[in-house]
Amino acid sequence: MALGASPSSGLGHPVDQAAQVVAVDCNGADRGPAEVAAGAALAAARGVRVVLFGPAAELGEPAANVEVVDAPVSIAKSDDPVSAARRTAEASIVQATKAVAAGRAQALVCAGGTGAALAAGLFNIKRMHGIYRPALALPLPLPRGAVTLLDVGASAEARREHLVQFAFMGAALASTVLGVARPRVGLLSNGEEARRGSPLVVEAHAELSRRADAGGVPFEWVGNVEGDDVVGAAADVIVTDGVTGNIALKLMEGVSQTMLGAIRDAASASLRGMLGGALLRAALRGFREQIDPELQGGAYLLGLRRLGVVPHGRFTRKGFAEAMVRAERGAREDVVGQIQRSLADAGAQREAPMSAPVASLRETE
Amino acid sequence: MALGASPSSGLGHPVDQAAQVVAVDCNGADRGPAEVAAGAALAAARGVRVVLFGPAAELGEPAANVEVVDAPVSIAKSDDPVSAARRTAEASIVQATKAVAAGRAQALVCAGGTGAALAAGLFNIKRMHGIYRPALALPLPLPRGAVTLLDVGASAEARREHLVQFAFMGAALASTVLGVARPRVGLLSNGEEARRGSPLVVEAHAELSRRADAGGVPFEWVGNVEGDDVVGAAADVIVTDGVTGNIALKLMEGVSQTMLGAIRDAASASLRGMLGGALLRAALRGFREQIDPELQGGAYLLGLRRLGVVPHGRFTRKGFAEAMVRAERGAREDVVGQIQRSLADAGAQREAPMSAPVASLRETE
Repeated sequence: MALGASPSSGLGHPVDQAAQVVAVDCNGADRGPAEVAAGAALAAARGVRVVLFGPAAELGEPAANVEVVDAPVSIAKSDDPVSAARRTAEASIVQATKAVAAGRAQALVCAGGTGAALAAGLFNIKRMHGIYRPALALPLPLPRGAVTLLDVGASAEARREHLVQFAFMGAALASTVLGVARPRVGLLSNGEEARRGSPLVVEAHAELSRRADAGGVPFEWVGNVEGDDVVGAAADVIVTDGVTGNIALKLMEGVSQTMLGAIRDAASASLRGMLGGALLRAALRGFREQIDPELQGGAYLLGLRRLGVVPHGRFTRKGFAEAMVRAERGAREDVVGQIQRSLADAGAQREAPMSAPVASLRETE
Repeated sequence: MALGASPSSGLGHPVDQAAQVVAVDCNGADRGPAEVAAGAALAAARGVRVVLFGPAAELGEPAANVEVVDAPVSIAKSDDPVSAARRTAEASIVQATKAVAAGRAQALVCAGGTGAALAAGLFNIKRMHGIYRPALALPLPLPRGAVTLLDVGASAEARREHLVQFAFMGAALASTVLGVARPRVGLLSNGEEARRGSPLVVEAHAELSRRADAGGVPFEWVGNVEGDDVVGAAADVIVTDGVTGNIALKLMEGVSQTMLGAIRDAASASLRGMLGGALLRAALRGFREQIDPELQGGAYLLGLRRLGVVPHGRFTRKGFAEAMVRAERGAREDVVGQIQRSLADAGAQREAPMSAPVASLRETE
């Protein structure tokens, strides 16, 4: 099946409900490729068809609905993933993205190496028509439900029109894969007022407000939100540039780990603390389950012609399975088509010819 | 004593060890002006001379070494602090900053309304010679010692040369007021490598590296640091733009509150949880004391001709007292002179005439 003929090519065709296959790069996971294969078995048991790309010798006997392509070469840890993705045709992520581009699979999961996934995805799956920049969207697991932050690091430089597109992309992800009926979308700033923020944020706020006032957005625009809203209830989707998003993400991890470390220290410093920690542990189980990042499947690579999901390398089989289930759901619910249609309806597509290297490659749509 | 004749005017003169007076705006505190006056009594007991500006009727009988100027008008909650500071001569913050400008006091503490403090400070105390932009520096209370983040919101737009000056300003604060012998200074980015970050961050990294390589910085330059390093041990001072700094600050507050709320919920959901929480509470007391923001006195307003300290409006007398003690220490150790000398030695001062409104006011130096 060629990409151009695919029913979920983002051209508004209905999606074939039965044919969604997920291509999975098994290299890069902290626990090794076998843990990803174990995740594939769990996903297959939930009805997902998977093609694994990794070292066949380590992946064991594939489960039903799981196919293995022997691809032992990994560029997940490369210092220069762009060059590596361009030059290493045999790398598992390159083979997986080519399988998606060729229509052999309808979505991508990459178990390690976000940089390699992004580069190989751009080269092979290619940027979606009318998109300036792909973005990494991360649904943050929170007690009241996920808040999706994007971009968390696909681009280091953002312009107004990029942030505007991120709003549409994040909303489409939330309304399909994450099941939020009409997502509330906010823009991360240092104050709620329209005048607050860097010049970039002020410009993006003005354009999103203008579009929302004109009824041209398929989401509820809530305007600027602040740092604490990232873990609050003010928005379902929060838009920011990739550098700020990445800083926010790592800061959250740092703060949680500092606090958990202090609690652990307190709960081991004395008999009294130990007893207290043990008693509280059971009560905190529900909270720990709510904030488990594996439940969200990982970060979502948006803006390519197919959906990509990048689970964290430290995930267990449970998280890898969730990534595959959600990648399949995204393909079946046509998140790519939704993004493309909503941008087209809003007239927010990129019109100029692409100047980036991938533009010189032959377009398949 | 006129500002120009002051021994700590930033011109390299030795500082009079005995004459440091702190002007304090009492309006804006959540617990009311009397709580600030109670803080002044504590600071006075530690040897600090204080002039309070606030509603005399609410401040009670002043302690020894505390003077009261009746100034009941507050602009702390103004929506437009710039206009309010310009037009409201009788406002307590305007009177306090004018007292500092006139040499009646050598440092400022403002108990509420960062915007008003910044505006009145710029109008009356004025920008330090050679400084592009003032910055708000916040020492974050952490178990391993404070990490100072700046700017946390004085400016919404930053240029390369601003971030470079923030590095010098933060280092001078750390080495005087915070007692760090040779501060390690980092630049907040989305990766440690020099090429990582927004174009602004990449440029600032290059200039700071060039200056450090040439031996022209009075601190240890550690290069880029990441989001988790804000609560880590990689640097004593972390430089960022005011929007990112403000987002980081509020995000930290949000994450801590979410986690503490979950623990509180767990510790009240069952008898077992309650018992666990009670037993753990004592063990966590040391941690809670280490991360108490009141211990750091608040945020430091750097880049004016005198040091300003802005404690959080929700502080108690303990935090307000700490702000006054540290403001006095900053004046006595001449943090302003240190900033000015280190920038002059490095040739990193602003050379062009100031174009901002305050430039049209008569210079007092």
